[in-house]
Amino acid sequence: MAASDELSVVFAALADPTRRAILSRLRQGPTTVGELAEPFSMSRPAISQHLRVLQNAGLIERTTSAQWRTCTLRTEPLNDASVWIDHHRGLWNERFDLLDERLRELKERSSDG
Amino acid sequence: MAASDELSVVFAALADPTRRAILSRLRQGPTTVGELAEPFSMSRPAISQHLRVLQNAGLIERTTSAQWRTCTLRTEPLNDASVWIDHHRGLWNERFDLLDERLRELKERSSDG
Repeated sequence: MAASDELSVVFAALADPTRRAILSRLRQGPTTVGELAEPFSMSRPAISQHLRVLQNAGLIERTTSAQWRTCTLRTEPLNDASVWIDHHRGLWNERFDLLDERLRELKERSSDG
Repeated sequence: MAASDELSVVFAALADPTRRAILSRLRQGPTTVGELAEPFSMSRPAISQHLRVLQNAGLIERTTSAQWRTCTLRTEPLNDASVWIDHHRGLWNERFDLLDERLRELKERSSDG
């Protein structure tokens, strides 16, 4: 049942409130693993497991410099997720309908002139 | 580990290619369960399980009229998912930055006059 296509991996990574909170924290800038773990009443291994899921989905990047392990937000995988959702919530239909309408107006005007 | 908040349930429902394909099919209009199952080489119980997950997430509505069981797409839960994603991909930041810039321009113009 576990899906391994990219979009599924991204959506699965987002399907957890702790992981979403970690991404929200990272919007403010790169953060050490210790700082990330702080607000959660969760063991370090549990946090590490969440970070692994986020990293596999391409949503964070982990770097080590000296003794610091730092996480950075990567937003690229969110773009495809956004396109899929907007497409299915009909947002694009509305935009295309609007474009159609404008084109029809232009056509009518040009045939009038 | 199973998260039960609404947004997690929606993202988890989207984290499967078969379920996303079902939602894509339903964009064309309400569909019977039989028609929905047709393109998938999957048992009817497996399809039913996917439909249950989508229904729990509020992404489809199931109705029965006479002997027909029909599924209809519901896009409302996608709105919150879209807001969350767009917020985190920085889209709103850019929009707010643009708004800030416009406001600053207007202010400068009005103080010039």
